[in-house]
Amino acid sequence: MKDVHAEAPRAGLTLGRVGISGIAKPLSIQRPDRVVTLTVRFDLEVDLPAARKGSDLSRNAELLGEVVEETLVQPLSSLEAACGLIASELLRRHAYATRSTVRASAEYFRGRGTSARRQSLEEYGLFAEAQGLRGPGGEITTSRLLGGEAVGMTACPCAMETARELLSQEFPELREPRLASLPIVSHNQRNRTRVTLRLPEGVEVEVDRLLDAIEAAQSSPTFAVLKRRDEAEVVLTAHRNPKFVEDVLRDLLYDLPKRFPELPDATHVAAETRSEESIHKYDVVAAHSATLGELRGISRA
Amino acid sequence: MKDVHAEAPRAGLTLGRVGISGIAKPLSIQRPDRVVTLTVRFDLEVDLPAARKGSDLSRNAELLGEVVEETLVQPLSSLEAACGLIASELLRRHAYATRSTVRASAEYFRGRGTSARRQSLEEYGLFAEAQGLRGPGGEITTSRLLGGEAVGMTACPCAMETARELLSQEFPELREPRLASLPIVSHNQRNRTRVTLRLPEGVEVEVDRLLDAIEAAQSSPTFAVLKRRDEAEVVLTAHRNPKFVEDVLRDLLYDLPKRFPELPDATHVAAETRSEESIHKYDVVAAHSATLGELRGISRA
Amino acid sequence: MKDVHAEAPRAGLTLGRVGISGIAKPLSIQRPDRVVTLTVRFDLEVDLPAARKGSDLSRNAELLGEVVEETLVQPLSSLEAACGLIASELLRRHAYATRSTVRASAEYFRGRGTSARRQSLEEYGLFAEAQGLRGPGGEITTSRLLGGEAVGMTACPCAMETARELLSQEFPELREPRLASLPIVSHNQRNRTRVTLRLPEGVEVEVDRLLDAIEAAQSSPTFAVLKRRDEAEVVLTAHRNPKFVEDVLRDLLYDLPKRFPELPDATHVAAETRSEESIHKYDVVAAHSATLGELRGISRA
Amino acid sequence: MKDVHAEAPRAGLTLGRVGISGIAKPLSIQRPDRVVTLTVRFDLEVDLPAARKGSDLSRNAELLGEVVEETLVQPLSSLEAACGLIASELLRRHAYATRSTVRASAEYFRGRGTSARRQSLEEYGLFAEAQGLRGPGGEITTSRLLGGEAVGMTACPCAMETARELLSQEFPELREPRLASLPIVSHNQRNRTRVTLRLPEGVEVEVDRLLDAIEAAQSSPTFAVLKRRDEAEVVLTAHRNPKFVEDVLRDLLYDLPKRFPELPDATHVAAETRSEESIHKYDVVAAHSATLGELRGISRA
Repeated sequence: MKDVHAEAPRAGLTLGRVGISGIAKPLSIQRPDRVVTLTVRFDLEVDLPAARKGSDLSRNAELLGEVVEETLVQPLSSLEAACGLIASELLRRHAYATRSTVRASAEYFRGRGTSARRQSLEEYGLFAEAQGLRGPGGEITTSRLLGGEAVGMTACPCAMETARELLSQEFPELREPRLASLPIVSHNQRNRTRVTLRLPEGVEVEVDRLLDAIEAAQSSPTFAVLKRRDEAEVVLTAHRNPKFVEDVLRDLLYDLPKRFPELPDATHVAAETRSEESIHKYDVVAAHSATLGELRGISRA
Repeated sequence: MKDVHAEAPRAGLTLGRVGISGIAKPLSIQRPDRVVTLTVRFDLEVDLPAARKGSDLSRNAELLGEVVEETLVQPLSSLEAACGLIASELLRRHAYATRSTVRASAEYFRGRGTSARRQSLEEYGLFAEAQGLRGPGGEITTSRLLGGEAVGMTACPCAMETARELLSQEFPELREPRLASLPIVSHNQRNRTRVTLRLPEGVEVEVDRLLDAIEAAQSSPTFAVLKRRDEAEVVLTAHRNPKFVEDVLRDLLYDLPKRFPELPDATHVAAETRSEESIHKYDVVAAHSATLGELRGISRA
Repeated sequence: MKDVHAEAPRAGLTLGRVGISGIAKPLSIQRPDRVVTLTVRFDLEVDLPAARKGSDLSRNAELLGEVVEETLVQPLSSLEAACGLIASELLRRHAYATRSTVRASAEYFRGRGTSARRQSLEEYGLFAEAQGLRGPGGEITTSRLLGGEAVGMTACPCAMETARELLSQEFPELREPRLASLPIVSHNQRNRTRVTLRLPEGVEVEVDRLLDAIEAAQSSPTFAVLKRRDEAEVVLTAHRNPKFVEDVLRDLLYDLPKRFPELPDATHVAAETRSEESIHKYDVVAAHSATLGELRGISRA
Repeated sequence: MKDVHAEAPRAGLTLGRVGISGIAKPLSIQRPDRVVTLTVRFDLEVDLPAARKGSDLSRNAELLGEVVEETLVQPLSSLEAACGLIASELLRRHAYATRSTVRASAEYFRGRGTSARRQSLEEYGLFAEAQGLRGPGGEITTSRLLGGEAVGMTACPCAMETARELLSQEFPELREPRLASLPIVSHNQRNRTRVTLRLPEGVEVEVDRLLDAIEAAQSSPTFAVLKRRDEAEVVLTAHRNPKFVEDVLRDLLYDLPKRFPELPDATHVAAETRSEESIHKYDVVAAHSATLGELRGISRA
């Protein structure tokens, strides 16, 4: 049969990325204590040289199917390990390609709760990406990126201060020193924060450590099961720890070097936090990227 | 040319709905004070008799195009008027059909603010639907439905009470009568409420009246532009008016008969309210439908 | 602590539905040959009597967590069984409620391919719903609904006939009897079809049978892995079996009674099919609902 | 009142982007022949120095409101002009910021059809972005980016060749030279292509020229209103012009220098094209970015 893909294109232009997008598969991952099966959505891409009309895309779906089938028998260690494996194998199967990218995202669950007795599986986001590179001598290297997203809660420190001033006019008792630490009403809302780490070669990072870092930076984590008293305690925790998105982002980034002392200074980090403002119909966001080395140099007030 | 649509189908089954879905058009509407141009997404459907293989769908897009073009010259009075016009014309152009449905949704803006000086265009949802019916004598009648959605804010009355109890242990001053009316911290969040009215024939209802009813039932409306003091006042308003989704829904439904005294008892109303809980990763919803007659009979504590 | 939920509301109105929405959980299901873990999104609702201010929603999340945890140890037989179990337990835990609804949706995978050697896990949609009802004597009954969605392909029979006429002017050979069966170009596209069955009490239906019925009604099923020849064969299959959405819907509904001879005439069926038209920017849809008894009476040309 | 935003943060880290996201507004734009009102969704961001706790975000919404209100009286020339104006004004109102970003997206309509008599408003995507930069001497400069998206159609050249081979076995007439140009069945589908141009200072580009370039690169544009013969002609056009996503992308990029001879070599271009494959449940994508200078050097077969 005619190999249309291998023909010369009308316009001889190398293309940066050609691939398949949004293909869903179940993937089994070995967690410390159990095997979990994720429903993962993948993108798989390679570059395309100027002399070739089309990329052999059936290889992408075929390769993904093979990797997925194998994990159902022999689970992989992580989603980013699956991406790394696929990225390097993409370059083996597309001999004309020099770069490959694999992106994956999944819902992820872990048990959390306000007490040991009141645990529930909470929903998180799990992201991974791998890039494959074919070197000048033909050797294939891959780099991997791991990301996590956690939804928690923030209470606004500014509205709280202004509310305290307004309420103090009506309730002068609030100016007494004993009531200075009384949590005052503010707007609070869902906060959605994502952080990604570019992993050094050969290094594995447990995504739960990233999710813990995010939840520690929010005004409070949130939970599926809250009995009356738990609910009030989450509210109090959040209002005793009011934060702008700027605070969430800075506290998270400031904290990462201490949580990951084993990672080198060159490790690249990116984070974004989004506040689904209760007092506005739009969101408020803050985002920053840096190396761990830069973050290790931050001074703290 | 062969009329494939008019052929007999292999299976002789009348179909309830056949049409086009998600077609977007700009549509000009005459508001009391100005012409507004909405970006509207439409569905247009008719039924199909058992003897006919296909519905002549190009007529749906053609008709919609004609109506839209005309409004750019001569604006219609409302989105539901546009739907009613299209629903009856659909039956004229599909001679084999006995029922037609037109659904439309758009973002809608109106000026709102915490004061006359601080107005801003706030985003709302606008919905309309019309159904056409061909009677036994061939006469075409239409019924129309009008809906609005407003995003506001709720503060939880339960978490507030529990927080008051917990804080009173730490701050016994809170038990003093003078501080009984001090607003106490609670979780608050975006509330998204939608209400739809089935309009009696020949009756027009201004959608702003529906949006006003929704905003009056939430703990507080929300605004795009809030300076520091405004922000705290919105927070205080919400916490002085804490509401479950159940309260929002009941207060809205209880209020409608008074806001629409001119509408007959048989008028059908449906409402749904959704709380994007700050303390949970999932939403809380309440929904109910009733006639205005039923709502006129509600007792009030 | 004060039970705010049990207080009398300001407006004494029974509410049809109050619950939690969009809560995600992993759920393990026993399939004929293996255990699969789905990522499921749930809604859980009950009604609320006029005398009660709030629904005890923490019970919904708590109950869901318990059921989910148990399936990770002891998988349930199906998603609709999980919904049925939760719907009846909701009524046990909300003593004031008379009706409950549980809705669930998940991505679902099954191995499919153009040949036994070329199998791949294909993505489908799986839906389930259960309603609980508390009878006058306090007894709880549930009804369950099972749904599946499959994405396949349709080729348009009308454009094919018109293209044949136009091409015959340029290529008179096409009028020769031998070429009458040559598949002619048409527009083809993704077709997304969903069917739901309301299950009689005590009856289980395997969702794969619903998905098979959908795929048999489309012009062709589609596949993740298609080598060159497979791809052309799928294209030829679709063009030898051109279908309007009306045809997909009728063929599916006509076929169901033969595929489910064991289900009684009163069984309610609903189906919707959507064509993501390649020649338009909008979709074309057809939908119908009927009982199996009505469908058993359809005549076939 | 206490200025919480101006306080020192606990962690002294400059943040790259802090802003508001997803705020919707109507915006009036002067087109060559008429004023159009778009429903636009905006993001407005600035950076934040290490010494400052929070960004004064109410200024973002206030500024946007002012610009929007003014366009309702005096329309702006384009969406990218609005973004440029807002980006520079953001730096004036956030004296501590050095960079600003404004992103905007809207649905956009223009009349198109298969003939002068059969015109309809077709839906497109319109995107704009502006970045403001405060120079060392305090001077503010802005750069702007303009983007358009068009949905059209592609037919696959590979499946067409393989189908021709398979059909030639059954219909040997297809091997005759006279039938070599007969369009053969293939899979075809919606193609969604986006292109963005970084505009040189002081240069305006009409977005319709970008949309024309995209539609010329697809196998065929698509239309809302197609009578029987039009539909077949669109199908024939697409099958006489079969294209991979790689072809769409290369033909588009190859064509841009000729369509924009006035733009300098340094002009940055990015394009992405997505095929919503009819024979797969996933999409196929191709993407590339380059300067017009690089594209001017492409050789053509």
